[in-house]
Amino acid sequence: MSSKKSDRRRFLKASTALAAGALGAKSGLAAEAANEPKAGPRNYANLGERSRFVTTARKDDYLNRLYPSKKVTPLQDLMGIITPAPLHFVANHSVPPDIDPREYRLLIHGMVDRPMTFTLDDLQRMPSDSRIYFVECNGNGAPGKHGMSTARPEKTPSENVQDIHGRTSCSEWTGVPLSVVLNEVGVQKGASWIVSEGYDSQKYSHSLPLSKAMDDVLLAYGQNGEPVRPEQGYPVRLLAPGFQGPESVKWLRQIKVVDEPYVTREEISMHSYLSPNLQGKARWFHFEMPPKSVILRPAMGQQLPGKGYYEITGLAWSGGGAIRRVEISVDGGRSWKDAKLQEPVLRFAHTRFRFNWTWNGEETVILSRCTDERGTVQPALAEFSKRLGAPKDFWRTSSVFHFNAIQPWKIERDGKVSDAMEL
Amino acid sequence: MSSKKSDRRRFLKASTALAAGALGAKSGLAAEAANEPKAGPRNYANLGERSRFVTTARKDDYLNRLYPSKKVTPLQDLMGIITPAPLHFVANHSVPPDIDPREYRLLIHGMVDRPMTFTLDDLQRMPSDSRIYFVECNGNGAPGKHGMSTARPEKTPSENVQDIHGRTSCSEWTGVPLSVVLNEVGVQKGASWIVSEGYDSQKYSHSLPLSKAMDDVLLAYGQNGEPVRPEQGYPVRLLAPGFQGPESVKWLRQIKVVDEPYVTREEISMHSYLSPNLQGKARWFHFEMPPKSVILRPAMGQQLPGKGYYEITGLAWSGGGAIRRVEISVDGGRSWKDAKLQEPVLRFAHTRFRFNWTWNGEETVILSRCTDERGTVQPALAEFSKRLGAPKDFWRTSSVFHFNAIQPWKIERDGKVSDAMEL
Repeated sequence: MSSKKSDRRRFLKASTALAAGALGAKSGLAAEAANEPKAGPRNYANLGERSRFVTTARKDDYLNRLYPSKKVTPLQDLMGIITPAPLHFVANHSVPPDIDPREYRLLIHGMVDRPMTFTLDDLQRMPSDSRIYFVECNGNGAPGKHGMSTARPEKTPSENVQDIHGRTSCSEWTGVPLSVVLNEVGVQKGASWIVSEGYDSQKYSHSLPLSKAMDDVLLAYGQNGEPVRPEQGYPVRLLAPGFQGPESVKWLRQIKVVDEPYVTREEISMHSYLSPNLQGKARWFHFEMPPKSVILRPAMGQQLPGKGYYEITGLAWSGGGAIRRVEISVDGGRSWKDAKLQEPVLRFAHTRFRFNWTWNGEETVILSRCTDERGTVQPALAEFSKRLGAPKDFWRTSSVFHFNAIQPWKIERDGKVSDAMEL
Repeated sequence: MSSKKSDRRRFLKASTALAAGALGAKSGLAAEAANEPKAGPRNYANLGERSRFVTTARKDDYLNRLYPSKKVTPLQDLMGIITPAPLHFVANHSVPPDIDPREYRLLIHGMVDRPMTFTLDDLQRMPSDSRIYFVECNGNGAPGKHGMSTARPEKTPSENVQDIHGRTSCSEWTGVPLSVVLNEVGVQKGASWIVSEGYDSQKYSHSLPLSKAMDDVLLAYGQNGEPVRPEQGYPVRLLAPGFQGPESVKWLRQIKVVDEPYVTREEISMHSYLSPNLQGKARWFHFEMPPKSVILRPAMGQQLPGKGYYEITGLAWSGGGAIRRVEISVDGGRSWKDAKLQEPVLRFAHTRFRFNWTWNGEETVILSRCTDERGTVQPALAEFSKRLGAPKDFWRTSSVFHFNAIQPWKIERDGKVSDAMEL
């Protein structure tokens, strides 16, 4: 009871108390005279629009210099766990196709009993499933932001959390389980991988273990209730839950069932990397995204108006399954307390966390740390670097994919929030 | 194993088998020569767009003759459980306001210790929650479709399921629990209801029991990750889960805490009704939407291309909480089998159901029937009418709100699907 009263007082400071008498003894509903809004449109469009005061949008990924079609999701503005389709990040490597769904064909062949082509209508008549899954770029959040370049402070000044972490999004995906289609064509003995190829200009292709393909991968044609967007692979894409984004091949043209991974162009040129602990060998075929969390409010680029109550909120996710725990530190990592997780917590989905905090106005650093259902804990940068065998100045010149170090945000006395990752 | 084989054969008919030899012994990935798509846009917008081939949209509600701003959701095209914001139904009774969020104020007063006004920023700094909830118009699906007019076949020929049932939608709503705000102002002893009023042209208002307000009602400012759309109450609306849509007052201007329900204009003129078993009295303050399910594919207005495998799919929901069971009949109600429910099944949310069916090409009637967590079963029309005390020709001239009778769809030999509700 006393704790409830204490809560009440905290929130109260943020609000405007009125003198009780001001509302007097009016009969019926008292009208507030001020701020009568103007009338909006009398008729609505068949596709509803957002308020003219809402400006939330994607931004160019700084990699847009290399690729003309990369956009990052405004994570700092999102609420809940669903990313609206127009705000989903894009990290395409080539020019996407403009596919007429009536002409769409998916070929499945290789080590199968009955090679077949499927129309979109064929696929949509088969048994379907819908799941809420995140898709994350393998380089999301990494120093240099794509795992190849120098540390971000020197390279590209990031303005807010979107610039660093905005290559993850979460949607309700609908499609045919790939296992249903593979059972239809009959996978032959000895097969162990699939190689998928897109209809885009470069015929993007990637290898995926057959065990994953037969487990929970979708041939997705739906995204948040409507057809998958062209940017996201319309009319059909792979959706490999928990695996790095590059496995979820878009504008799916063909799947070949094979007995070894194919070393495709992207796998060689873009999605492998050298790391110190590999002694000159490159790291390939690392699929699962590690557990990760980011505080989105307060976060880099934001300004706290003054001391008092704040809800610390953000997202956590893991390729290892469901998030089990998110801990928050508001004292630079000295102490940690559990955040509240938004129910239901779903496997391979963004998980919203929330934490009540009263800022005393002093300089501090806030951090979040998540643990997934396997017990894997998101590491601090020092621990991440140690496991990698990274030398002292590694991050000045190098980077890696699947970067999941804890993101610290520094809050200054004037309320300014900035990136405190010490690279 | 044999059942799996049987499944495989069913789907196979819908697809095109290729001669295995046709793909031959090509090395690497075999390319399919036909249907090379053109290139799409090289750059993406900051708000992503849908394919030019996707035409799914809302339609005018036939009540648009009375109200200029009513739209129905294209349920038959939806996948999964999320309704994209641009497709959310609209059933507003007046001209919506065009609110500048910086000028927005919410007044909370009446039987409270500290009457207060809140800015949008105040509300967004308070503890928040997100939940996936349906909102359904109280007249959705009713004969005459708004509970007042004559039966639909005579009144307005409906083209598809959208016309009859399209006034329900499901979103992830984010906001402050109303209980948090009411605790902030301090509800006085003896209070038992709240009356909420909007900023729209007619100052729409409705009464809600305080017990519900303190339970799970949200002051919602977020919808599917982004700000609530103007049509849906931007910047802040009530969201009373499981209760009829009219309780979730939009463009929220004030909440007055009171000790009795107020008999507001809409409650008298629009949301009460006479029914035979009430002997001349009107039915008011009936909040909870009853359990309901609708098959969306195959459904009215659609055409089955021929006998063979179909996935029967649709949505079920209940104001009584979670859906526990959906049963399907493919023989006009003589026998019933359980459909598969999409996980997770959420309280007060649309629940997607799916059922494997092989149509033998003969004329038949398909139906769905749901049961909610309380064990309440969706009734057939005869049972619904009996409970209502409706005389034989009742539906020719009358209707009621909260109509949830089972919807039968007739499938003719030529594959045409039509409404078989015998009113």
